[in-house]
Amino acid sequence: MARSPGSALASLGEFGLIERLRHLVPTTGPGVIIGIGDDAAVLRFSAEAIATCDIQVEGVHFTWDLCRPEDLGWRALAVNLSDIAAMAGVPRYALVSLALPPETTLATVDGLYAGLAEAALAYSVVIVGGNVSGTSGPFAVDITVLGEGDRVLSRAGAHPGDAVWITGSVGKAAAGLFLLQHPGTNSPAGEALVRAYRRPIPRVMAGRVLAATGLVTAMIDSSDGTASDLLHLAEASKAGARLDLDCLPVPAGLEAAARAAGRDPAAWTLGGGEDYELLFTAAPAFEARAAHHAEAAGVPLTRIGEILPEAEGRWVLGPGAIRSPLRAAGWDHFQNRG
Amino acid sequence: MARSPGSALASLGEFGLIERLRHLVPTTGPGVIIGIGDDAAVLRFSAEAIATCDIQVEGVHFTWDLCRPEDLGWRALAVNLSDIAAMAGVPRYALVSLALPPETTLATVDGLYAGLAEAALAYSVVIVGGNVSGTSGPFAVDITVLGEGDRVLSRAGAHPGDAVWITGSVGKAAAGLFLLQHPGTNSPAGEALVRAYRRPIPRVMAGRVLAATGLVTAMIDSSDGTASDLLHLAEASKAGARLDLDCLPVPAGLEAAARAAGRDPAAWTLGGGEDYELLFTAAPAFEARAAHHAEAAGVPLTRIGEILPEAEGRWVLGPGAIRSPLRAAGWDHFQNRG
Repeated sequence: MARSPGSALASLGEFGLIERLRHLVPTTGPGVIIGIGDDAAVLRFSAEAIATCDIQVEGVHFTWDLCRPEDLGWRALAVNLSDIAAMAGVPRYALVSLALPPETTLATVDGLYAGLAEAALAYSVVIVGGNVSGTSGPFAVDITVLGEGDRVLSRAGAHPGDAVWITGSVGKAAAGLFLLQHPGTNSPAGEALVRAYRRPIPRVMAGRVLAATGLVTAMIDSSDGTASDLLHLAEASKAGARLDLDCLPVPAGLEAAARAAGRDPAAWTLGGGEDYELLFTAAPAFEARAAHHAEAAGVPLTRIGEILPEAEGRWVLGPGAIRSPLRAAGWDHFQNRG
Repeated sequence: MARSPGSALASLGEFGLIERLRHLVPTTGPGVIIGIGDDAAVLRFSAEAIATCDIQVEGVHFTWDLCRPEDLGWRALAVNLSDIAAMAGVPRYALVSLALPPETTLATVDGLYAGLAEAALAYSVVIVGGNVSGTSGPFAVDITVLGEGDRVLSRAGAHPGDAVWITGSVGKAAAGLFLLQHPGTNSPAGEALVRAYRRPIPRVMAGRVLAATGLVTAMIDSSDGTASDLLHLAEASKAGARLDLDCLPVPAGLEAAARAAGRDPAAWTLGGGEDYELLFTAAPAFEARAAHHAEAAGVPLTRIGEILPEAEGRWVLGPGAIRSPLRAAGWDHFQNRG
């Protein structure tokens, strides 16, 4: 079993690599009593703690030809920050677990950590622990993020009559990934779409602002796709839902890219995953001050549907007032990417 | 790229598998405000929080021919509980991240979760989150454990004059692994040694009892090997150390197994990793009540050396009063298993 990563890494050794990496990211900060270098980190929380983990596996969640190490580092942390944001939490600490195949170069790991550091600094997250392992398989980075919140929001609080809202725009990451996979596609807005795929923006500030309104009833991040995540929220809330296709905030250039690609834009706007926007429900009174909240959140807010009694079902209102069932069309790491 | 796990798993899908697994382990308990099923878990800590993560990769940390899925489940959680124990913490919550290759069967995942549940129930740990991914590489399970403690111990508090102690016995896991790899070796105590490798016992109760004495100054778990971990503790404490080879608590049958195998027992007792005992330092007054503390901890305590001024170095006192340097001879996932 040959397991040693590339020679530069192998000569550093496990402890040498950890020693190198700890200097590339923020490792101390408020609340960190003991950080990297002991058996475990010791941390202080001043409110309820929020915990999530998410893995990025080469060949499943990304490929090196379409994702630079710096982008992967940003992305691997950002997808976890998005989960904290979806609970209306503030991210605080992260643990980073790496599985490195033999061919891994030091440049790859340094690049990953540069992107990781950029996201950690941008969102005031401290890396407090982790581990490094060899693997005979693909490169993988598994991150746990710990945050805290004093007014957390779950998926399970939506009531009939609440409006459905979303931050930012939908379908951009799926469109960006398509453009990367089909570099011949003519798309003037391609750069922004590709950036949305490579460098998702976790809506941390928005999550806080929305919870502070006291009018938001449920929230989820759109990692699996707009349709799929509204379905998750409605199921958790034991409610029905209507999604208004015409209201979806479609980013500039997405429809043109879809035409150039011969694709239905709804495959991206309804079905495309990895946007990492916040999909949330709010009492009707929210709408009157939505413009103000959007400014405070630093991101547009768009009303895209309504929560219904459970008996009225979950469906999409499309062109010509045609109803179609709301279907989970997001990512399934076992099935959709086979 | 074929990424779908075995047909039974593929037909369950990612969400179906998660739904199945959550019923196999404890998922609710004190302090869990929101558990599995939302974007993140929401948890309460009543003291300082302690966080650690550790991965088990097939071919690096275990092989299926020597480790049953049930054992892997126990082991993957136990090695993390040991890190919490080494900080004198109480484990509370765990997040479990799985990377499943295409050939994974439902029986393997169910077995893993049976062992995981056994350890979770034994140590009152609640599984509060995680994720499941496909992989083109080896099976991997990465676990983050969160605990808490009101009197945490680090590696960095040892003073010259403190005695060095260890719980339980040393070298048993390495001996057990050797016996598994060389099934022809004659070893009457083989079963206990093999069990020590497959089902390490995290010394959670011992960590608490030791911290409560107020006399323990530093602690680490012996995951890398007795010599290596004493070196880590001495380095973190900026101190020297003497390890008395004759005092090491060698388990029954280890020396006979070493003779039968034609091996030097010190390769296991000094260099063998994965024992997951607590190696700690204590003020001289500890010794007078050590027998009582051992009873409360539920595990023997053995004095194995002394902390010295840093200038006196770090060394092993062997037969015939010969001194040899204390060397890191434990596991390095990049180098020692290449």
